[in-house]
Amino acid sequence: MKQYVAHVTVTLRRSILDVQGKTVEHALHSLHMPALKDVRIGKHIELHVAAPDKDRATELVDDACRKLLANPVMEDYSIEIRELADTGVPA
Amino acid sequence: MKQYVAHVTVTLRRSILDVQGKTVEHALHSLHMPALKDVRIGKHIELHVAAPDKDRATELVDDACRKLLANPVMEDYSIEIRELADTGVPA
Repeated sequence: MKQYVAHVTVTLRRSILDVQGKTVEHALHSLHMPALKDVRIGKHIELHVAAPDKDRATELVDDACRKLLANPVMEDYSIEIRELADTGVPA
Repeated sequence: MKQYVAHVTVTLRRSILDVQGKTVEHALHSLHMPALKDVRIGKHIELHVAAPDKDRATELVDDACRKLLANPVMEDYSIEIRELADTGVPA
């Protein structure tokens, strides 16, 4: 079994108004930073995955996104996976 | 003036207990996904920056992170910047 680290980014769909992002944008402008705009806020989730290979690890994380981490009606998600280290235990 | 898109990832420092992450981990295990662990939850912020060059854009976003987006006592942040398109307006 190998260990992978997964980085999941969950963002609101483009068509949905991001109220939190708008609020942060207003705050930035109040702080005299008018060069920053179109702020959108999402979630970043890091987790460790034990799986025999990278495909299986991606599948497990994708399953978690659909079932728990993201709301597929309102949110999009992207997954990045990299191998951490071999634990030496056979899969 | 060029347009850049910045992706900022704000995460809790390693030494700080991530209660939200722990809760998500328990939920994943309740959903019969024991292969997923060490969940840590952070923020993902996407924003557009108008700046004469990439260094200046990074500086502006770094400034925003220190002043508003991240809490430097408890959180770490990383910034990724890429150029979006030239607006044709001289800097």
